[in-house]
Amino acid sequence: MTQEHDREKEILDAKRVANTVEVASRVSNAARMCKNRHRGGVLWFTGLPGSGKSTLAVELERKLFDAGYTVFVLDGDNMRRGLNADLGFLPEERTENIRRVGEVAALMADAGLITIAAFISPYQKDRDRARKAAKDNFHEIAMKADLATCESRDPKGHYKRARTGEIQDFTGITAPYEEPVHPELSIDTANNSIDQCVAQLMNYVIRNFALNEN
Amino acid sequence: MTQEHDREKEILDAKRVANTVEVASRVSNAARMCKNRHRGGVLWFTGLPGSGKSTLAVELERKLFDAGYTVFVLDGDNMRRGLNADLGFLPEERTENIRRVGEVAALMADAGLITIAAFISPYQKDRDRARKAAKDNFHEIAMKADLATCESRDPKGHYKRARTGEIQDFTGITAPYEEPVHPELSIDTANNSIDQCVAQLMNYVIRNFALNEN
Repeated sequence: MTQEHDREKEILDAKRVANTVEVASRVSNAARMCKNRHRGGVLWFTGLPGSGKSTLAVELERKLFDAGYTVFVLDGDNMRRGLNADLGFLPEERTENIRRVGEVAALMADAGLITIAAFISPYQKDRDRARKAAKDNFHEIAMKADLATCESRDPKGHYKRARTGEIQDFTGITAPYEEPVHPELSIDTANNSIDQCVAQLMNYVIRNFALNEN
Repeated sequence: MTQEHDREKEILDAKRVANTVEVASRVSNAARMCKNRHRGGVLWFTGLPGSGKSTLAVELERKLFDAGYTVFVLDGDNMRRGLNADLGFLPEERTENIRRVGEVAALMADAGLITIAAFISPYQKDRDRARKAAKDNFHEIAMKADLATCESRDPKGHYKRARTGEIQDFTGITAPYEEPVHPELSIDTANNSIDQCVAQLMNYVIRNFALNEN
């Protein structure tokens, strides 16, 4: 990309922003936080297929909801059927998939929700971009399980189909997974039960999201 | 597009869905509704630039929030700076802009929120697609004001810049606006005060979203 092109894009971006009408919300983040009794933010679950992201996301959602939290799960199921139905699994499509998820998660956090995003999200730079979108309340949570454990779970038979070549670009087998460099939390899903993992997550959320009542 | 191409796309779509891991949420819509004391859904504000969409969106948001509703505004400001920062104002980009907004609004409605989407959204077929994404709780609300009134408001000087040609493809001047065919509600913003318009909107929301306490 040439410098000239960069400059042109900069001008276009500036025009685009100038063309949007800004009418600031009259409901502050603090007001939403007081109503909900917790701050909004993003819990970003990353890990290999079969590492437990989706299972733990829905279990944690239920626990948090029952404890009075305002919470929602974004996952491949509700994202790829709607917003990202136009995207496949090529590297640049995965990147765009995660970019959009990161932006939606950030919007939901602005709306006051604890948003649990459960995505393989194999590239660190994509996760870093999601962090940037969510500004000051992003929590990268590494779901840690070795490949053999993940493959032995294989809840949908995807690993098997990846081994036979029926599914291409499958993370862990034929596509790379970059381990989180500095995750806020790591959950060892190979050596802990679901209940134990959820308890660790609940403790983390209470410590980091709940308003201090004192 | 050929039939063969259609078929190919269908197979790809089926594969894509098969490749996502489905783990259903354990928090039902009914449970979210009970917690919030209202259903989730989308209030879709459409109208010419200057018809009052953004102003009424933030005023209604504040009123609803103060009345205990869980509510959030999607508008050009928070969408075009983030999720849709890659899109301009060409017809196909406007369509993609609105497609994404519709999907995000639907996700937020699933999360239990009343989502106010304030967008010119000039094409009926784009608004119909947003309706389809939100399934059973989409409310198209026409912000009605004649062009002369909208142009005289011109809060950001956009009409002026459109008249001089500085802004191209400007809805109402150099780009079309398709009036809603069967909106759920029309608000006459030319002949009513902001307070009057907000009162009409509040009444509508109470009638259509609040749980019946009896």
